Amino acid sequence: MSDAAHRQPPKGTRDFYPPEMAIRRHIERAWRGASIDHGFDEIDGPTFEHLSLYTVKSGEGIINELFSFRRAGGDDDYALRPEFTPTLARMVAARAASLPQPIKWFAIPTHFRAERPQRGRLREFIQWNVDLIGVEGSQAELDVLSTAIIAMERLGLSPADVRVRLSHRGVVAAALQALGAQQERLADAFALLDRREKMEPKEFDVRAEAIGLGSAATERLGLIARTKLPIDSDARSIGAALGCSAADAEPLVELCTRLIAADLGAWCDLDFGIVRGLAYYTGSVFELHEASGAERAIAGGGRYDKLIELFGGPSMPAVGFGMGDVVLGLLLHDRGKLPAADGDSLMPRPDVFLVSAGAPEAEAMVLQLAATLRRGGLHVRHSYKATRNVGKLLSEAGKCRARHAIILGAELEQGMVAWKDLAAGTQRLIPVADVLASVQAARGQARAEL
Amino acid sequence: MSDAAHRQPPKGTRDFYPPEMAIRRHIERAWRGASIDHGFDEIDGPTFEHLSLYTVKSGEGIINELFSFRRAGGDDDYALRPEFTPTLARMVAARAASLPQPIKWFAIPTHFRAERPQRGRLREFIQWNVDLIGVEGSQAELDVLSTAIIAMERLGLSPADVRVRLSHRGVVAAALQALGAQQERLADAFALLDRREKMEPKEFDVRAEAIGLGSAATERLGLIARTKLPIDSDARSIGAALGCSAADAEPLVELCTRLIAADLGAWCDLDFGIVRGLAYYTGSVFELHEASGAERAIAGGGRYDKLIELFGGPSMPAVGFGMGDVVLGLLLHDRGKLPAADGDSLMPRPDVFLVSAGAPEAEAMVLQLAATLRRGGLHVRHSYKATRNVGKLLSEAGKCRARHAIILGAELEQGMVAWKDLAAGTQRLIPVADVLASVQAARGQARAEL
Repeated sequence: MSDAAHRQPPKGTRDFYPPEMAIRRHIERAWRGASIDHGFDEIDGPTFEHLSLYTVKSGEGIINELFSFRRAGGDDDYALRPEFTPTLARMVAARAASLPQPIKWFAIPTHFRAERPQRGRLREFIQWNVDLIGVEGSQAELDVLSTAIIAMERLGLSPADVRVRLSHRGVVAAALQALGAQQERLADAFALLDRREKMEPKEFDVRAEAIGLGSAATERLGLIARTKLPIDSDARSIGAALGCSAADAEPLVELCTRLIAADLGAWCDLDFGIVRGLAYYTGSVFELHEASGAERAIAGGGRYDKLIELFGGPSMPAVGFGMGDVVLGLLLHDRGKLPAADGDSLMPRPDVFLVSAGAPEAEAMVLQLAATLRRGGLHVRHSYKATRNVGKLLSEAGKCRARHAIILGAELEQGMVAWKDLAAGTQRLIPVADVLASVQAARGQARAEL
Repeated sequence: MSDAAHRQPPKGTRDFYPPEMAIRRHIERAWRGASIDHGFDEIDGPTFEHLSLYTVKSGEGIINELFSFRRAGGDDDYALRPEFTPTLARMVAARAASLPQPIKWFAIPTHFRAERPQRGRLREFIQWNVDLIGVEGSQAELDVLSTAIIAMERLGLSPADVRVRLSHRGVVAAALQALGAQQERLADAFALLDRREKMEPKEFDVRAEAIGLGSAATERLGLIARTKLPIDSDARSIGAALGCSAADAEPLVELCTRLIAADLGAWCDLDFGIVRGLAYYTGSVFELHEASGAERAIAGGGRYDKLIELFGGPSMPAVGFGMGDVVLGLLLHDRGKLPAADGDSLMPRPDVFLVSAGAPEAEAMVLQLAATLRRGGLHVRHSYKATRNVGKLLSEAGKCRARHAIILGAELEQGMVAWKDLAAGTQRLIPVADVLASVQAARGQARAEL
């Protein structure tokens, strides 16, 4: 074990020491809180699934991006989950008949991709998934988008930091058909739009022709992909910009109207370059991006009304998104939304630090008092050093950011201890029996850190 | 995907639907809260590690119990983590020089074992790990044991439900040496004690002889393994019971004295049959068991002063334990410590359910009010049904266990809404502008559910 490489986590994975873990929990609390406040219930599934669960939707091509394995002596092929949607669809399909509807679920699982690690992309990451299943109208989109946006707000981000870019496959499909794209080639057209920045202009033209577009229409297609409009655009101006009818734009306008009514409009833009690579989206599609457009997407999602069926369930409308922790973490860091000491001040603060100041009976009393306070739900620390130097012990209390110190000294003979407010620097004697109630009252509120 | 087997999670893994997830979060909150209140900081590591991290401590024999794999085209062997200790030791060793000491860490990671699933044992499970590194004295044992016990209390368990069984390898080693066991065969002797119930008496005798024990000593060895004493036993009576000196028993007595001083004695017994299979324990060893002794151990741990060194770090004293969620979950269920509806009442309760009762302007107002309340940190739900029947909507509010309903009806013209307390059944009109403050005040405390 002298191999220095084995001091490190595997490539593309992370060790979370306490400051990094405090940041992770800070992000997870914002995700979980926004989800619960929007009426979503938390779920989780296995960390690995049958390999075939992933090939059914994405084909065999995905296998190279997966960590797959067998049990020694077993004959089932498994893969570490690269995303949550297949697990979600499997869980819905398995109990579709008995689950109350609509199904509003969120999850904060770990995911794994056997890719080359790079900025914003790791081999193991955490992804928040929010899904609303069983609602056809745009209230579903509103609720999942609101959940994402409120989480951003709780992390200290504003519309100047993050933009929600919104599009709608139905609207873009109408525009493509107006250009002459064949109905049965629309999926190819979306794939082409999605990959447009990864190919040479010539290749783009050749593929556009295969979809049934002439050179003028191909040029218009490029224009559509660059079309950005304000969130309060009406159906006529959307139709005019894309070259489809106002009626085609109505479903998107309905969603925009709701977003504005819910005071979320300031976060959102229409951006018809947003396609989302995956074939399974059927209506709205959206991404959250850093405002300047640098970095990868923070989140992506949309409506996928056919997916539950694909996994053997009934036909059910559905909307959802995924948001990873890696790009979001970079953004929070770059925007100065994390404490300077890399998470230190996000770590739980002790309510009280117990100081044993010399009296022999204080030793046993410290043990008993610590147990009493912890049974009362308080965060209690003490020193492991042999010293009884009160100054040194108070300095240790300060270092761990304790709010109060209780000093067990000579007054213990009269049943009294010194209670010191470490921020204010004030100190007074109180009866030992009152310590629990006093510290609880000083804290006031239940902690949100669990 | 019509294959019904693929509706199920892989063998030995679990789907967590909302009620099961609520139970998991309930357990995790007790674990996390007890850890934080005892001054432990949360950490985590990668879900998979280099395979060699696991073979260094346990030898190649462990490979069959691991899920191991390579990346397609890669040449590194990885394994899903079967336990947390190697990751912990690696993380300590990597930063031993810079980490403040003592190191007090906890983690709640998922673990994986490629075993045959059975009652209390799954292929994927969650295990709480608590470790205190850098403290030699029994204050370290006290703090980790207190953390485990306070978590049991917060889950509603009492000393009538769960017992802490405590032993000490140093004391048992002294007793074995007094019987004539050779110093260099003590590790074998502990392994023999640990597996004694899994072998025929004859095999036990043969192995005992190999360790250097005659037949009388072997019989005494069996007696030691059945020795149970009260937690307030003095050193002399422990020495007498085991056949070692009172001085040999002192380290254990010191720990017992602290446990009693901290009001934890009622949970604990001395049980010299507790060995813990793993070779790396160097002092105290303990297990938590269901009181009757049925089921597997709920938790196990002890002192492992040589382990950090084994993983390439400096020599550091250490104490820790692991507690899985599976046996604990069975125990909580069997003892009636979980809500009847399998977690339903552990799920977060909505603060307010918004009812849109017909006024056309209510539709947009519901969206805006929902956003305002959620921005204020409240858990807000509404119906997805088209109905405006207030009775039906209130019944839906009751079903999701909302505390209050806000009814937006005809009074909205005067800027008023009806605020209904769903438990008390009372209802009164309040200004729309007061809704946020009223519901926040009614809730009173920050939620502990995050």
